[in-house]
Amino acid sequence: MELPDDATHAILERWPIATLTTLAQSGRPHAVPIVFARAAGALWSPVDGKPKRGGELARIRHVRRDPRVSLLFSHYQEDWSLLWWLRADGEAQIRSAPQHHRGEEEASALVALRRKYPQYEHVALLGPDAQLLRIAVTSQRSWCASAAAVAYISLGP
Amino acid sequence: MELPDDATHAILERWPIATLTTLAQSGRPHAVPIVFARAAGALWSPVDGKPKRGGELARIRHVRRDPRVSLLFSHYQEDWSLLWWLRADGEAQIRSAPQHHRGEEEASALVALRRKYPQYEHVALLGPDAQLLRIAVTSQRSWCASAAAVAYISLGP
Repeated sequence: MELPDDATHAILERWPIATLTTLAQSGRPHAVPIVFARAAGALWSPVDGKPKRGGELARIRHVRRDPRVSLLFSHYQEDWSLLWWLRADGEAQIRSAPQHHRGEEEASALVALRRKYPQYEHVALLGPDAQLLRIAVTSQRSWCASAAAVAYISLGP
Repeated sequence: MELPDDATHAILERWPIATLTTLAQSGRPHAVPIVFARAAGALWSPVDGKPKRGGELARIRHVRRDPRVSLLFSHYQEDWSLLWWLRADGEAQIRSAPQHHRGEEEASALVALRRKYPQYEHVALLGPDAQLLRIAVTSQRSWCASAAAVAYISLGP
């Protein structure tokens, strides 16, 4: 069965993690976990200060070539009657939010990210390029194993 | 930093869940959570008896057109110094394991799945088409935020 609307809303608003899949130049799918927040009608994910390999991130390179992305939200439980997932397909854009030339949308995205993740008190919210991905969701699909699964979503992972 | 080899080995052997991304006909990425087990030099994921929408699964249709897939293993924690992920790219094949004409590889895959997931005592391991995906991993990348993250992998999600 599909998740009810209030559950998909809660996930997009409050779930802490998603799998972002972008397309490599070869067309291969390339998946990575991301944090994100909802603001200004889209989902935003920063290129933050968590340790990185260095150099431009693959996800940024990929989105510049092909904006099509897929986000998957889900949570594993040993009780399979509690399983659910939500997939949101969309188009990503690279936005930058330099400290002194920040657009309104980018500013509200940064506020939403700080509010959602207290971790950004100790981890830099933006890297040297001050980049974020803005993901506009164009379609959604969801699944849950049972109505009981829905009650668990609000508890978080 | 990359995960050490014994950690990636433990994940492929024992982690209960992965995100499988296949490619839709449009070339769009299509992600879904899967269970899997390692056997006969590959990873295997059954089209099992968990409730489905009906009709052939998108992942099966996609793999028939384009075998390129990506698997992502990861686990969210509020302590971001414990974050890690492992990505395994590969090629998927559709195999079938009908009860009376079962190949050796398929048989060992079913044994591994039953051993890994006691849930299959109550959920059908195979659907009416007795299909499994066989995923041959061709490359791996991993990341962890700190050495402390590695110690948590063996605890499971």
